[in-house]
Amino acid sequence: MRRVCVVAPATIANLGPGFDAIGLALESPADRATAERRPEPGIEFRLDDPTGAVPRDQARNVAAHVAAALLADARPEFGVRLTLHKRMPVGSGLGSSAASAVAALVAVNALLSKPRARADLLRFAVEGERLASGAPHADNVAACLLGGVQIVLSGDPPVVVPVPFVDRIRWVVVHPATVIETRTARRRLPGRLDLADAVSQWAHVGALVAGLATGNAATVGNALVDRVAEPARAPLIPGFLAVRQAALLAGAFGMSISGSGPSVFAVTDSDAVARRVARAMVRAFRTAGGIGARAWVSRINRRGARIQRLPPLQLR
Amino acid sequence: MRRVCVVAPATIANLGPGFDAIGLALESPADRATAERRPEPGIEFRLDDPTGAVPRDQARNVAAHVAAALLADARPEFGVRLTLHKRMPVGSGLGSSAASAVAALVAVNALLSKPRARADLLRFAVEGERLASGAPHADNVAACLLGGVQIVLSGDPPVVVPVPFVDRIRWVVVHPATVIETRTARRRLPGRLDLADAVSQWAHVGALVAGLATGNAATVGNALVDRVAEPARAPLIPGFLAVRQAALLAGAFGMSISGSGPSVFAVTDSDAVARRVARAMVRAFRTAGGIGARAWVSRINRRGARIQRLPPLQLR
Repeated sequence: MRRVCVVAPATIANLGPGFDAIGLALESPADRATAERRPEPGIEFRLDDPTGAVPRDQARNVAAHVAAALLADARPEFGVRLTLHKRMPVGSGLGSSAASAVAALVAVNALLSKPRARADLLRFAVEGERLASGAPHADNVAACLLGGVQIVLSGDPPVVVPVPFVDRIRWVVVHPATVIETRTARRRLPGRLDLADAVSQWAHVGALVAGLATGNAATVGNALVDRVAEPARAPLIPGFLAVRQAALLAGAFGMSISGSGPSVFAVTDSDAVARRVARAMVRAFRTAGGIGARAWVSRINRRGARIQRLPPLQLR
Repeated sequence: MRRVCVVAPATIANLGPGFDAIGLALESPADRATAERRPEPGIEFRLDDPTGAVPRDQARNVAAHVAAALLADARPEFGVRLTLHKRMPVGSGLGSSAASAVAALVAVNALLSKPRARADLLRFAVEGERLASGAPHADNVAACLLGGVQIVLSGDPPVVVPVPFVDRIRWVVVHPATVIETRTARRRLPGRLDLADAVSQWAHVGALVAGLATGNAATVGNALVDRVAEPARAPLIPGFLAVRQAALLAGAFGMSISGSGPSVFAVTDSDAVARRVARAMVRAFRTAGGIGARAWVSRINRRGARIQRLPPLQLR
């Protein structure tokens, strides 16, 4: 291919009790990248970012950084003109930097004469996370790149295991209009855990995976018990407890923080209940948190980042 | 029913990284209990124990203790003559006390005019574990009572979640001729964990459940990474590292400690390889550990304790 457009979706990392371990790909929101070959070697980077929130500088922009690394490794006889269409909210806990990195990597990869397997792009994407947050965590990028739900057994080098799932659960993701820097959120974590808390955490991870494998929204919801990251991070999210209460009253089976927040997610098993839960959560953010919020309802995105067969967006 | 015989199987608790959280029911070995109504109220307890390893005293014997508690709670118009046929090795890490308790409970329950659901027997079985080891852990009894693979979300009151599994994995269980008291093994555990070790533990629990759900022996084997209990307990098992090495060389995908040891288990995906792995492990216990050992090859026991349709064993 000479010109491609790639859509890379939002992801829920730190899924429930699965801190630093489990990522899940959503359907929306998403970032996009377009890439086309050019005769001159190296990356020519363009940024289409209405929000002005991400760095334009090629050395500091995650998408440009990982694309350049892949290109340097693959050494094709051409260069790439790469445009990142930044559409996801930044610092939202929805894997915005992962989506940008994966969109760029998959787009550049598709231009290569021998494109690499998705799994082989993972290490480049992890380097993007290192640039974005200082921590080379792989749960967002693994889910974004490979789709579905991915467990990260080891981050560096990345080793991942896909979680089998029955696609019966609806994921309500709500992003309140506040920013939590991943770096800041990580500094709040405890360095050591009581054995009893750790046992609870991994028992709930087991139940979460069991619930995903059977498509049981109640089991998944009940498994969203996080004694590690949530106690440290929930205070950073205005109205958190009221929003959870509202979600459960509206019919959700459980609620937890997406990534390092401030976005939160709830699970249920029907579209109608999911829409009701979304409205209740947005309302609770406004009344209890004094803050606007935006909601999406998704299934699990089985494919992850996808190369669009449609004509690519017009480059600017 | 007026007279029943119940076979309650061995179980692997602390399954791999699932310390205090995941139990798995095996096909063998097993304990048996026979129970029959008698006119006088209360339990008349008999013990058929060729090894002489378990207490005869009704107040200290786990099977008699839980049977009496169930009977006191159910208050039928009859009493029960209960015989425990102790067939499992004691202090083996194979859930011997759980098997005795569950055999007794299921047998007495079957005599009731309105037998209770298996799940309702769980709290009685947990009390048996408290008597046996001082810790009311539920992973052995949940798997023994309910069958399959069970995750314990909370021990008291017991809350369990079944793990879906594809029955493609062979479990090689090897019991070396040494005893580790559960109480002693628990004292060796760390009270606190580094966050990084805890994350590794729950990532591997997630992978373990994913591997069970898909019947992938390699995924399950690779998930048998335990940074919590194994480092503390492996030194109590003579030849542990050599036995693991032998298991892997013979074709196992992974090996870990069963319960609090000294038994160990390995996973593979065929009967032929399982038998080879079993022989290699027994040999390594002898040569490297200087100790005799006995091996069993099982599938997952889907039903757990079962009421025998055959005529019960003759009471002695």
